Amino acid sequence: MDDLNTELFDLTMSEKAKPLFERVKKHLEENVAPWQEEFAALNKEKEDRWTWHPRQLELLEGAKAKAREAGLWNFFLPDAETGEGLSNLDYAYIAAELGKYPQGSETLNCSAPDTGNMEVLERVGTPAQKEKWLEPLLRGEIRSAYAMTEPNVASSDAKNISTTAVLDGDEWVINGEKFYISGAGDPRCKIMIVMVKTDPDAAPSKQQSQILVPMDTPGVEILGGMEVMGEDHAPRGHMHLRFNNVRVPKENVLLGVGRGFEISQVRLGPGRIHHCMRSIGKAEIALELMIKRAGTREAFGKPIAKLGKNLEVISRARIEINAMRLAVLQAAKAMDVLGNKEARVYVSAVKAMVPEKVCLIIDQAMQMHGAAGMSQWFPLAGMYADMRHLRYADGPDEVHHMVVGRAEVQKHGLW
Amino acid sequence: MDDLNTELFDLTMSEKAKPLFERVKKHLEENVAPWQEEFAALNKEKEDRWTWHPRQLELLEGAKAKAREAGLWNFFLPDAETGEGLSNLDYAYIAAELGKYPQGSETLNCSAPDTGNMEVLERVGTPAQKEKWLEPLLRGEIRSAYAMTEPNVASSDAKNISTTAVLDGDEWVINGEKFYISGAGDPRCKIMIVMVKTDPDAAPSKQQSQILVPMDTPGVEILGGMEVMGEDHAPRGHMHLRFNNVRVPKENVLLGVGRGFEISQVRLGPGRIHHCMRSIGKAEIALELMIKRAGTREAFGKPIAKLGKNLEVISRARIEINAMRLAVLQAAKAMDVLGNKEARVYVSAVKAMVPEKVCLIIDQAMQMHGAAGMSQWFPLAGMYADMRHLRYADGPDEVHHMVVGRAEVQKHGLW
Amino acid sequence: MDDLNTELFDLTMSEKAKPLFERVKKHLEENVAPWQEEFAALNKEKEDRWTWHPRQLELLEGAKAKAREAGLWNFFLPDAETGEGLSNLDYAYIAAELGKYPQGSETLNCSAPDTGNMEVLERVGTPAQKEKWLEPLLRGEIRSAYAMTEPNVASSDAKNISTTAVLDGDEWVINGEKFYISGAGDPRCKIMIVMVKTDPDAAPSKQQSQILVPMDTPGVEILGGMEVMGEDHAPRGHMHLRFNNVRVPKENVLLGVGRGFEISQVRLGPGRIHHCMRSIGKAEIALELMIKRAGTREAFGKPIAKLGKNLEVISRARIEINAMRLAVLQAAKAMDVLGNKEARVYVSAVKAMVPEKVCLIIDQAMQMHGAAGMSQWFPLAGMYADMRHLRYADGPDEVHHMVVGRAEVQKHGLW
Amino acid sequence: MDDLNTELFDLTMSEKAKPLFERVKKHLEENVAPWQEEFAALNKEKEDRWTWHPRQLELLEGAKAKAREAGLWNFFLPDAETGEGLSNLDYAYIAAELGKYPQGSETLNCSAPDTGNMEVLERVGTPAQKEKWLEPLLRGEIRSAYAMTEPNVASSDAKNISTTAVLDGDEWVINGEKFYISGAGDPRCKIMIVMVKTDPDAAPSKQQSQILVPMDTPGVEILGGMEVMGEDHAPRGHMHLRFNNVRVPKENVLLGVGRGFEISQVRLGPGRIHHCMRSIGKAEIALELMIKRAGTREAFGKPIAKLGKNLEVISRARIEINAMRLAVLQAAKAMDVLGNKEARVYVSAVKAMVPEKVCLIIDQAMQMHGAAGMSQWFPLAGMYADMRHLRYADGPDEVHHMVVGRAEVQKHGLW
Repeated sequence: MDDLNTELFDLTMSEKAKPLFERVKKHLEENVAPWQEEFAALNKEKEDRWTWHPRQLELLEGAKAKAREAGLWNFFLPDAETGEGLSNLDYAYIAAELGKYPQGSETLNCSAPDTGNMEVLERVGTPAQKEKWLEPLLRGEIRSAYAMTEPNVASSDAKNISTTAVLDGDEWVINGEKFYISGAGDPRCKIMIVMVKTDPDAAPSKQQSQILVPMDTPGVEILGGMEVMGEDHAPRGHMHLRFNNVRVPKENVLLGVGRGFEISQVRLGPGRIHHCMRSIGKAEIALELMIKRAGTREAFGKPIAKLGKNLEVISRARIEINAMRLAVLQAAKAMDVLGNKEARVYVSAVKAMVPEKVCLIIDQAMQMHGAAGMSQWFPLAGMYADMRHLRYADGPDEVHHMVVGRAEVQKHGLW
Repeated sequence: MDDLNTELFDLTMSEKAKPLFERVKKHLEENVAPWQEEFAALNKEKEDRWTWHPRQLELLEGAKAKAREAGLWNFFLPDAETGEGLSNLDYAYIAAELGKYPQGSETLNCSAPDTGNMEVLERVGTPAQKEKWLEPLLRGEIRSAYAMTEPNVASSDAKNISTTAVLDGDEWVINGEKFYISGAGDPRCKIMIVMVKTDPDAAPSKQQSQILVPMDTPGVEILGGMEVMGEDHAPRGHMHLRFNNVRVPKENVLLGVGRGFEISQVRLGPGRIHHCMRSIGKAEIALELMIKRAGTREAFGKPIAKLGKNLEVISRARIEINAMRLAVLQAAKAMDVLGNKEARVYVSAVKAMVPEKVCLIIDQAMQMHGAAGMSQWFPLAGMYADMRHLRYADGPDEVHHMVVGRAEVQKHGLW
Repeated sequence: MDDLNTELFDLTMSEKAKPLFERVKKHLEENVAPWQEEFAALNKEKEDRWTWHPRQLELLEGAKAKAREAGLWNFFLPDAETGEGLSNLDYAYIAAELGKYPQGSETLNCSAPDTGNMEVLERVGTPAQKEKWLEPLLRGEIRSAYAMTEPNVASSDAKNISTTAVLDGDEWVINGEKFYISGAGDPRCKIMIVMVKTDPDAAPSKQQSQILVPMDTPGVEILGGMEVMGEDHAPRGHMHLRFNNVRVPKENVLLGVGRGFEISQVRLGPGRIHHCMRSIGKAEIALELMIKRAGTREAFGKPIAKLGKNLEVISRARIEINAMRLAVLQAAKAMDVLGNKEARVYVSAVKAMVPEKVCLIIDQAMQMHGAAGMSQWFPLAGMYADMRHLRYADGPDEVHHMVVGRAEVQKHGLW
Repeated sequence: MDDLNTELFDLTMSEKAKPLFERVKKHLEENVAPWQEEFAALNKEKEDRWTWHPRQLELLEGAKAKAREAGLWNFFLPDAETGEGLSNLDYAYIAAELGKYPQGSETLNCSAPDTGNMEVLERVGTPAQKEKWLEPLLRGEIRSAYAMTEPNVASSDAKNISTTAVLDGDEWVINGEKFYISGAGDPRCKIMIVMVKTDPDAAPSKQQSQILVPMDTPGVEILGGMEVMGEDHAPRGHMHLRFNNVRVPKENVLLGVGRGFEISQVRLGPGRIHHCMRSIGKAEIALELMIKRAGTREAFGKPIAKLGKNLEVISRARIEINAMRLAVLQAAKAMDVLGNKEARVYVSAVKAMVPEKVCLIIDQAMQMHGAAGMSQWFPLAGMYADMRHLRYADGPDEVHHMVVGRAEVQKHGLW
């Protein structure tokens, strides 16, 4: 992470992406912004929390149709055969804009965990797997989930995975529990990629496989939704699942038996970085709210922007956001230039850096709003919960610091 | 805050309080702990979120009866004529225990905002006011609310209060909006003390009055519940209220017209310190959960207590909790020895110190639990939201730092 | 560290100590304060940095004589046969005052490392050792050093000690290197207690012994003075020593061969806590300087106390100082009540807490002074260097956090 | 600071600069690194601290000659008529390398405050001024100082300047005091640019002028050297000067009477950013030392890199260094693209960010070295003092946060 003399410092958007970027901004302003509030309000009107309100789907599909028509679709997939993808760097600029609107990403078919799942399918899927699952995903017709984290083991150490898949004739029989499976509550979610242990006797990094499990497979039991700081994000949810003798065909294994970790390397880079990119957008929103409040709310005879440390809080937020943005762009560029594997230290660096810092910025924005900052009147509390969740998702901060720290020490041949 | 040679350093519980303290602990373990989980679960079963489940009230009243019978009741009121109260110092020890259980305080009739309201009524109420409102409150038959914060002005500067009360014959006519009125959603809440502006032309500190408003007075409109980080705490709630030409008798003003601030000085000291006392108990719970998780969860082949910075996080939490406990005890003692007014800098000091630091400890406890730490499986997320709310309640951190900082500078004659 | 119902919360000075405390303050104001500046200035006038200026010794001895005459002498030694000592708690109050003046402690014969050495000699010395070394130390006629830290091993793990002492007939032959031996440069320093390895084959905690080595023993070579952030504190210094076949009589071993760690337990408790006590006094000085500057220096048309975050910085400093003071007093009380061994977690807690926090307060005081804050015009830079040094002395912060963290986990039976 | 779609994100070194960058690295390794230790040691051997040892000058001049011969000279001056300068961005890469060696910059004639002074002379000097002062400066024959900060007023608010210049016939008569005038102790320092108040009755931003004062002008009195955390950096020093009726010709005013602030805008941008650039290099050195220590020092049976939080400290240092580097490069680019004036918020942002964060990294490196980290055996303590000084130099952090915060609020039209 300290090679200076390279293209890793050219962080400009490509000429090709510039008009797309402008069109995405326009799309968000015209086709998404206007209904974000209505969409959120509808969530409270539904009788069954675990369904969508028909009007919600109408709003969403309307915007998706417009985006697709305008060619603003599936940007996330670099070097895809389908040709729609952008470089990670270009996508980083766009993702920061998407992060400003809760439904922004989905309208461009660029939302997690579908992006990661589509990338995996595109990279390692068989033609049959692609036809059955990648195609409808790329068309935005279905959604998907990724089932990795388990309630009973420390997910920070992926070797602990305890859900088993045992071959029985031509079928895998899966048993175990997973939780925090985001999006698995969505009625549109049709397919899951599940990390399982297929060979407990193999070398530690060869014991795991990833396997396709359709949501409607018998034995897939949804035990309930996990909350993140009081929010369950129904109907998408963060589901707690049990696999009770779930049977899927042998060929549902991705890439090959025992290659589960290998696939993680493929998926985790971009997935982590997409979160970070969007988080930059969220931080910008938090700062904007902070400033608007500080500049208009008065106490002791002046706007609170002129009271105490508030102006310095604003300054520090801006300084950190700009530095984070550059770091995220560079990590994206590193993936473009070095490949996901070589770029993994850059990726861990921003994953360990961004959610923690953005949490602080959102928290300070709340504080500057007084009690209302925590209320449903502002999006800050929900943003905080999401961002706090990111400090665990795809590996807790601590594990990413281990990756970065160890790489530093190894550079000096000292680990 | 730097006088060394005084009784402010004797922070021992009185001999009189020691057996009470032990009996409170026993009461909590025997009469409260067993049903805390059931109580919380019932909250999700009710049809109307804004009522209590009959079983909830049964549990609560059962424990209250036992506490009252055992003489564990109304401890919060020092030097009360009723004779039940403890010194602030003694109460601080007990409150820390109460803070470990969400319903702990209520079973001893020691929960906010009733404690503050009862103290105000006891200190400044007329005999008629006492009979009508203080008595049933002291008996735990009704509950109450305190309506100060307003949505449209910076509450950190109390002079901004905009709700008006205008005398019309023998009645006050009240108009305005209040929000974050905790407990005003509780069906048992019968009376509110409301901060109003009675004389906009008086000197800034003489414009306000506090006035008793029965909840069922026509014109008192509940607009809804405010959330704190996604939780509305129904049925008690943090209500958003509108006063539409609400009429109450002239004599409902407390202490006298234009003396609203004076009353605040009476109430705010103890109220703030009770929160801080209970927060010490909550911090102990968070640390205990953190340790139990760190000592039992394994990753990379060892308990996570032995990984990375975790042990230092535990150490720092313990160190800060112990220092905070001492500071809170000393502030309580200062109120006993110096009186609420003279002790106000001590009180602001702990109010600015404790919620912020306990937030951090709870946050670290969450982090050590992985994603589950944010979930409904552990009490941490709810504790965090409550504690985060305390950083605004009764004045945001920033205002308390102003009080402490200014007192320091004034000591040197330099403000 | 969480037993609540005990005398550990009575932190009042004893009746016996109150008049002493007042007399110490008077002594410092009358007999020490007037010449502190002259004393410091003389340091720059001497031709040989590693001697005292005669006038310096005159000032020092003058004040010592007055203190001794007034019975303000050797307070540090609780339960001493000599009868002069105070409880650790009482001494904590006095030490905080001593910490406000660089030469304060020495005028009362209460300065490190003599206090620790005298305590060890008093507790475990033979009558002959006491006569030869303890007596002149108690009379303030000579000074002493304690040689533990070594340049070539991590002193945070005391088992690493590599200086050896081998018995040759009736003499120990000592070889090795020590550094940061504070006070060993002082021409008045006549005796050292040296930690050596006497039995490399014994159990890890039985390999070390402590041994008396007169400074003028042949083979004791002073290689030079170690600096702390650019200051060498000549003539006392933090010396780098080499032991070249240094021979001392067999009976110079303290307490017994292999009992070096046991002695450390005796000495380290009070030594660590004395530093922390004095640090509270230093923090008060830093805060006072900060306030005086902030209240008098103007920028942008007002005193800087009214600019930006400065007032909050002052508030936070006061809050932390008060909490630290209470924590230090409680640790002192714990030593009085529980004994040094049982109190060791309390001691580690304040050792890990105080120097780090006081460093921050001094740093903020510097910042509020502008560049001059770092200059010789204010004592802040020197105070910072001393305080920063304390974060290593007698064990780095990290080791004390290990002690506290481990004790917490063990309370739950989980280490 | 949030315009995304621009060349501000191309932070690559130019093709022209790449070979220079490599040659500078080679120069530093071959012509500077070998004698850095000898140079520092000579500082202690001189009889007069306020002169150079002849051998020191020999080493320095030798390296300067090599650099000049190799065309590695005066890189700091973008768009100079002399043609030697690099863009700010290119220079930023080189400056980070220079920052790794104390004498690095000087060997390339790129050290402060000469760079700023030369830039000012080049931009606004008259032909006569250029010939007399700029030429020998550009040739590295003399050195210079910049006299702005005053002991008796808050320099954070430049309007406070109290040194006066009064026109008396054809001469300015200057009276006042300045301090922290870096380099004014150097016997080679021949010229000063002095900020003076020429018209106390003008508008606040028109009262000041900058004026050339040769060091040997009668009345220029050096009162002594100011220290930074115990170091006076003799013989260059940070001098305390008094101007006693100092007379210089009328034409020594730069640019024009009352245009002192205008010149500051010219000089301060690059000067601030050069410091930040070099600080990145210093942070890299600190991290390297930290890692080497952590990877080789053992305690409790393993390298301390594997103990406690140390690996995370290393990770966080790397993450922050990389983010700071990008932010500094972007600020340099902003100066290239937008001009110094428009780029000033970017510049303030890095000035407020970098020294504070690098201080922390150096401090952590010290901590990981144990007590030796503060000693003369490692460069860390000196680096800390220098970096701590930067938090005041060219405006304290607080003032730069004001600039950044205000710009943010103004973007929303709310200041």
